[in-house]
Amino acid sequence: MRKIIVGVMGPGDNATTADLDNAYELGKRIAAEGWVLLTGGRNAGVMDAASKGAKTAAGLTIGILGDNDTSAVSDAVDIAIVTDMGNGRNNINVLSSDVVIACGMGAGTASEAALALKNGKKVVLLTDNQESQQFFTSLSPDSIFLAASPGTAIKFVKEILIKHR
Amino acid sequence: MRKIIVGVMGPGDNATTADLDNAYELGKRIAAEGWVLLTGGRNAGVMDAASKGAKTAAGLTIGILGDNDTSAVSDAVDIAIVTDMGNGRNNINVLSSDVVIACGMGAGTASEAALALKNGKKVVLLTDNQESQQFFTSLSPDSIFLAASPGTAIKFVKEILIKHR
Amino acid sequence: MRKIIVGVMGPGDNATTADLDNAYELGKRIAAEGWVLLTGGRNAGVMDAASKGAKTAAGLTIGILGDNDTSAVSDAVDIAIVTDMGNGRNNINVLSSDVVIACGMGAGTASEAALALKNGKKVVLLTDNQESQQFFTSLSPDSIFLAASPGTAIKFVKEILIKHR
Amino acid sequence: MRKIIVGVMGPGDNATTADLDNAYELGKRIAAEGWVLLTGGRNAGVMDAASKGAKTAAGLTIGILGDNDTSAVSDAVDIAIVTDMGNGRNNINVLSSDVVIACGMGAGTASEAALALKNGKKVVLLTDNQESQQFFTSLSPDSIFLAASPGTAIKFVKEILIKHR
Repeated sequence: MRKIIVGVMGPGDNATTADLDNAYELGKRIAAEGWVLLTGGRNAGVMDAASKGAKTAAGLTIGILGDNDTSAVSDAVDIAIVTDMGNGRNNINVLSSDVVIACGMGAGTASEAALALKNGKKVVLLTDNQESQQFFTSLSPDSIFLAASPGTAIKFVKEILIKHR
Repeated sequence: MRKIIVGVMGPGDNATTADLDNAYELGKRIAAEGWVLLTGGRNAGVMDAASKGAKTAAGLTIGILGDNDTSAVSDAVDIAIVTDMGNGRNNINVLSSDVVIACGMGAGTASEAALALKNGKKVVLLTDNQESQQFFTSLSPDSIFLAASPGTAIKFVKEILIKHR
Repeated sequence: MRKIIVGVMGPGDNATTADLDNAYELGKRIAAEGWVLLTGGRNAGVMDAASKGAKTAAGLTIGILGDNDTSAVSDAVDIAIVTDMGNGRNNINVLSSDVVIACGMGAGTASEAALALKNGKKVVLLTDNQESQQFFTSLSPDSIFLAASPGTAIKFVKEILIKHR
Repeated sequence: MRKIIVGVMGPGDNATTADLDNAYELGKRIAAEGWVLLTGGRNAGVMDAASKGAKTAAGLTIGILGDNDTSAVSDAVDIAIVTDMGNGRNNINVLSSDVVIACGMGAGTASEAALALKNGKKVVLLTDNQESQQFFTSLSPDSIFLAASPGTAIKFVKEILIKHR
């Protein structure tokens, strides 16, 4: 039977220390809930940190790679989906996630938040970037949830899953 | 020899009257410059208006359709590229454009602006949506150009083409 | 650490009884080896039968869906990857598989065998369709393995994994 | 108004002299009919030869590139569509073509012929590769047209356009 998938999207090389800490904690909590973690799969930034967090709690981790092979995959990814689509894979990331958490902000993460909204998904923002909070809330107030900590983010995910799945 | 392509991205069903007027004028001016117009191709909103504008100036119009056939294509599209990729085609829209103009704002348009920045493209914003102006400028100040009219947008496109192509 | 993924590709609505029996047996044996099963994910034909076989041996099953939601997913799929790319997802199917088994034959399966070869993957053909055996062998003799039974197919997969992963 | 697009698919680096001659002639005749030529766009093999042929007859040429930039585009391509999808762009090639001509044979070309059939398109085969003729005819006898020369291929395209567009 189909498992619940929670996507954690965030910067790769430009992730801040806070983003990495949050991502690790999110991964751990997602795994502890019995959900599957989905990320962009590379061995960098939020993708890598979230996957590593999930493995500490014996979670299952999926990485949707933009590459055409697995040379850049995180060691903490169990299932590598190889798309060879570059940033085009961002739409697959959000479509495959029951809920999307944006952890940190950047152009790639912004594209994933926007694609999630366009596809009718709920998005939890875990970032102190105020411009992004204001912008995405203005785009779709009913679908954006602002979280100040990984714990609050997970609480929002639970509420969303109860109502929408 | 490869022609210059300018992409005009904007809302479909939720376009405002101002968006439609701007899109029509952009299409006309893009064609008048001898550039090819690229849009999302549907017979709705900014895509349709920009394509119609371009045809009044004998321009060539390309539509990158998310559908798997051409039933929803704008009458003003000359070349329909059928992707069957839904919103996944947004990455193709921006990669294929030498410069991207976001005319109006919405979740789909936001995803295109963000994907353009992620792929290293310059983006001209033609919208009075202030949250989007602030957000995208904060993401990538050197790559975002705020235009208040179609004329200014075209002026920015010319400057970008001179420097970056 | 990344798990080994074996892809089983085959007809949906046009699968023969032999195809379905073979797919079920392949799924069972793939799971018994500790490999992850990857299919096109729909609740039809070879995709569904292979996934059901894998679940009888407590395997993990991935479905790469061409749809934009999970309404047509097989009950026996654990992880649904939603691409909204129609047949465009066939390239992802083969890129994500360490080895591809074509079980039965049809236009979709042929596209997957051809894309696998184009991407440098090995392909095991389990079909009595002689035209396909002759054609794919002529295309790439070193990369095509003709199997007459699920057991032989699995033997080939083992040999390929030893040499190429 | 939407123009008729004829796709010519064939080997890149492994094209034979006969394939190149046929592709050039096909491009010329497609342009002479007033149709738009669509290819995979690279400066190699059948893609390049067909595009060059079309330009001798003042045709319009589209190249659907698998790359993420235009560095490998043929000089004879007017409109470069940049997908960054590698071989995943093959599905877009066939969906965007009103009729597909396979000129020569190889794994990539085979994937395009198969994807065309899967998507309900008609395919003209211009190749002396007998295994491919037999295989694709067996897959879909009503949708495969075997041509021995560019002239016959164009005749088939005309018949198909009259019946199916």
